[in-house]
Amino acid sequence: MKNVEHIGIAVKELEAAEKLFSSLFQTNPYKRETVESEGVSTLFFQINQTKIELLQSIADDGVIARFIEKKGEGFHHIAFEVEDIVAEMARLKKEGFTLLSETPKPGADNKLVCFLHPKATNGVLIELCQGIKS
Amino acid sequence: MKNVEHIGIAVKELEAAEKLFSSLFQTNPYKRETVESEGVSTLFFQINQTKIELLQSIADDGVIARFIEKKGEGFHHIAFEVEDIVAEMARLKKEGFTLLSETPKPGADNKLVCFLHPKATNGVLIELCQGIKS
Repeated sequence: MKNVEHIGIAVKELEAAEKLFSSLFQTNPYKRETVESEGVSTLFFQINQTKIELLQSIADDGVIARFIEKKGEGFHHIAFEVEDIVAEMARLKKEGFTLLSETPKPGADNKLVCFLHPKATNGVLIELCQGIKS
Repeated sequence: MKNVEHIGIAVKELEAAEKLFSSLFQTNPYKRETVESEGVSTLFFQINQTKIELLQSIADDGVIARFIEKKGEGFHHIAFEVEDIVAEMARLKKEGFTLLSETPKPGADNKLVCFLHPKATNGVLIELCQGIKS
């Protein structure tokens, strides 16, 4: 794990949350992105080396909508940047962690990502991510 | 907000969680600390610039025990380092955020801390912290 790349927060209303977090951070989001494949609309704040990602569902039965229904708004995941996501996935699988996909998937912010099942990590949804070199 | 100082994760069994996160991060915690006033036993991992704090309750009715009872294990709070905690508390109060204490309190890791009420921050418990100069 190289560093905490970002922290994802599930919100019901992206626009209202944007105002609140802009006031909290005294800065505006630097990026907005919709990831159709994940059914989410996102925006990102940059706080020094760490990004804060706000996620709103764009589908009634999307993962974020289901998460909020079950647990309420709040922390959704923490993403760690890794050097080689395929190697790291293999290492963690061997260590007994449960991967939510067999291969890396394209995520927001031009990254390859893979999630670990939170049941095996004390309820914390962990994302591994690796930047895609352009 | 200068940076994400640490991310706090509530766990039931610190020892088991330590093994799991050590395996995940491929590193051992660099510090252990019990904060009697908060009723918690903690340990810290350092991942580049960000710390991951695991928290276990040492009291049956402590904040972490009550949190886990209500929401289960997982993300508990995110701490942002600030330059001047008193000034930042005054600013946020004026902006309409709800502070959980009127003055900064001593926290783990030689810090002065103050929490914001998660009801006003999309369910996210936010800690402000400022290092105490020794």
